Amino acid sequence: MSNKWLIKNGKFAVSDPEWRIVSGYMLIEDDRISYIGEDLPEGTEGLPVHDGKHQLFIPGLINTHGHAAMSLLRGYGDDLALQVWLQEKMWPMEEKFTAEDVYWGTSLSVLEMLRGGTTAFLDMYDQMNQVAKVAQESGIRASLMRGAIGFGSDELRAFKLKEATTFAREWHNQADGRITTMLSPHSPYTCGPEFIEKFVEAAHELNLPLHTHMSETAAEVEQNVKEYGLRPVAHLEKLGFFSRPSLVAHAVHLTDEEIEVLAKYNVAVAHNPGSNLKLASGVARVPELLKAGVVVSLATDGAASNNNLDMFEEMRLAALIHKGVSGDPTAVPATEALRMGTEYGAKSIYIKDTGVLAPGKKADFVAIDLDQAHFLPYTDLISHVIYSASSKDVQHVWVDGKQLVKNGEMLTMDEERIKREAQAAFEGLTSR
Amino acid sequence: MSNKWLIKNGKFAVSDPEWRIVSGYMLIEDDRISYIGEDLPEGTEGLPVHDGKHQLFIPGLINTHGHAAMSLLRGYGDDLALQVWLQEKMWPMEEKFTAEDVYWGTSLSVLEMLRGGTTAFLDMYDQMNQVAKVAQESGIRASLMRGAIGFGSDELRAFKLKEATTFAREWHNQADGRITTMLSPHSPYTCGPEFIEKFVEAAHELNLPLHTHMSETAAEVEQNVKEYGLRPVAHLEKLGFFSRPSLVAHAVHLTDEEIEVLAKYNVAVAHNPGSNLKLASGVARVPELLKAGVVVSLATDGAASNNNLDMFEEMRLAALIHKGVSGDPTAVPATEALRMGTEYGAKSIYIKDTGVLAPGKKADFVAIDLDQAHFLPYTDLISHVIYSASSKDVQHVWVDGKQLVKNGEMLTMDEERIKREAQAAFEGLTSR
Repeated sequence: MSNKWLIKNGKFAVSDPEWRIVSGYMLIEDDRISYIGEDLPEGTEGLPVHDGKHQLFIPGLINTHGHAAMSLLRGYGDDLALQVWLQEKMWPMEEKFTAEDVYWGTSLSVLEMLRGGTTAFLDMYDQMNQVAKVAQESGIRASLMRGAIGFGSDELRAFKLKEATTFAREWHNQADGRITTMLSPHSPYTCGPEFIEKFVEAAHELNLPLHTHMSETAAEVEQNVKEYGLRPVAHLEKLGFFSRPSLVAHAVHLTDEEIEVLAKYNVAVAHNPGSNLKLASGVARVPELLKAGVVVSLATDGAASNNNLDMFEEMRLAALIHKGVSGDPTAVPATEALRMGTEYGAKSIYIKDTGVLAPGKKADFVAIDLDQAHFLPYTDLISHVIYSASSKDVQHVWVDGKQLVKNGEMLTMDEERIKREAQAAFEGLTSR
Repeated sequence: MSNKWLIKNGKFAVSDPEWRIVSGYMLIEDDRISYIGEDLPEGTEGLPVHDGKHQLFIPGLINTHGHAAMSLLRGYGDDLALQVWLQEKMWPMEEKFTAEDVYWGTSLSVLEMLRGGTTAFLDMYDQMNQVAKVAQESGIRASLMRGAIGFGSDELRAFKLKEATTFAREWHNQADGRITTMLSPHSPYTCGPEFIEKFVEAAHELNLPLHTHMSETAAEVEQNVKEYGLRPVAHLEKLGFFSRPSLVAHAVHLTDEEIEVLAKYNVAVAHNPGSNLKLASGVARVPELLKAGVVVSLATDGAASNNNLDMFEEMRLAALIHKGVSGDPTAVPATEALRMGTEYGAKSIYIKDTGVLAPGKKADFVAIDLDQAHFLPYTDLISHVIYSASSKDVQHVWVDGKQLVKNGEMLTMDEERIKREAQAAFEGLTSR
């Protein structure tokens, strides 16, 4: 029997092709939206009804780059340069992460993301079976991959590649299709060319997309030129990386020519404005990327460099900083920032039928409580979502038509236990 | 009889001289803090007790530049240049503002600010009696001034100056001292030199500080040079502006020499990162200002150019953008951003004994609910306030020792009526 239910009295942010607000009804059948419109659709008598009064429904937010378990290191080492922060603070602690640490750190992040309106996330980390387990249990949509750093012996690299491909094969399209996988060498500065090429080969074999960190810092670009005689984009192009559907995280330091290459290969970019600012990596050339036709989505990165997982904040940062830095007040308007957080996110992680509210699409959406001082007056609701809202304004969340958050309460996870275990995990890490 | 009460089980963010967290007790007597410490103070048996479990107490946030009534125009004209936005969108609507519009717009803003942990605000606007009335009724602390634009006839200017001085005289130190006043010609680009000089004279007569907009845009600086042969800082210096305690808003476009002049005269700067980014005005040279010893505080500006009044967001923006733009990850660390939002705010608007938690200081403070996923683990609570928190994490608010917000509920204002009237006021403005 199909699960069919109706939302009435709602305001729906629809983007076909311009954003507009439809006041009325949305019908959901199983995991799909089947109707959005002003009129009550026929044949809906007796269906379960959600009253959407004072609620704005937007597509679920899609966080296209992160390391969820790193929430265990939130606030552990701030106001430091990227390499110092990685090498002296993060990596020594992360080396100690047990499977259980990854489970509870990821749970803490997924809890924060779901409650904050993020319905799908990309995760690149280690011990990915734990991450997949959290995604499976919580009901969130996830694009998962074992991120492989290429330091160490040949055997270690072979082991990591095997682990990455095994995970990708086993978990792709699991959890009713909510979990998909990618392959991910960590970055050109932590993985040699041969190691990257092996990931490219495997991606062809498994028919999966690729993901990596690229050109996050100026120092990393310089190092690439010194070691390989090429900037990272040309380097990855040469290694065949862009012969697969691919997503690069950060892409802060790009030349005009590199932007053209990314556009030519339809490479998507995960823009991490908060993390890039906090680590002083710089300001990505987002207006130029968008102008060139590159799909630019938004991401929080790990909570240790952000330090929260609030996608509303990332959308606002994307809308604000590029105006301030370029001097162009029309750069990244609110409407485009919302697409970056939703529609372009779905394209970036190669998941189908998500990121927009429309009949036939997946029922992944979020209700924002509009009955609050900072949303008044009701002038331009898309502007309010980008310039006024925060993750705390999220009232309800659904994924695949199933409600996961109701009146701010998690329905599928034990919030109290997760908070307790996450704190204990951190204390365990610092004491051993 | 004195009103004496105790907070137990709290964590208190104390800044003497480095930020540290004191776990224990805070004693409040009337409008002042009388004790903070780990041990229960003597003679407190039988006093009313607030249980501060899972709460972090920080000084109330101080918003040092804004136009509260402009919340009625939130979302009414986004993604536009400053002059277009002002001349085509804001000013035509503001001309229509009635006293009642100012009352409800200001109420909407004060409601948002108090619920979000802002305990004091500066307001530069018109019909200031309405603003003073809202401050008086709500219990918030306020530094108020009639902002005078010098366009029009001599009579009109004389009328505005009179209105400004009358308001300043009548309301200074009213509402148990919660309301103080300043004098404020709007800006060098909207006020001729003689008009500014009259404000300077009046400030000497009334022994009040001065406030103005200065060097918000590059165009405005150019215009100043063209008209007066001087950049705005030298221009205001020449007019005697800095002979009074003074606060300039924005100060985005400054030379090294101008920073030295501001430091020499102890001129405070209200930094508006969100508004400056949104209007593409640029990024103020905050690290250089702080290094030169200038008091830099934080402000939201009006909600029409922000578009919320969340001081946590301004603190975070101040901590993030200067790192990203300068490339220095130690620029404006979390500890300094928190001082900008609190202690430096109090100095900027020339109010005494506020902005820090310490015995003898005013009991203006805020409790943040720490029992939330995005604050875990409990690594560095100052970092969490700056990099993870939002105004929605504020649980309780006190001003002058009196509780104004309890579990997120306003105790002194009728929230439902304010929301209704603000919406009606906006609809009225668009229909006449």
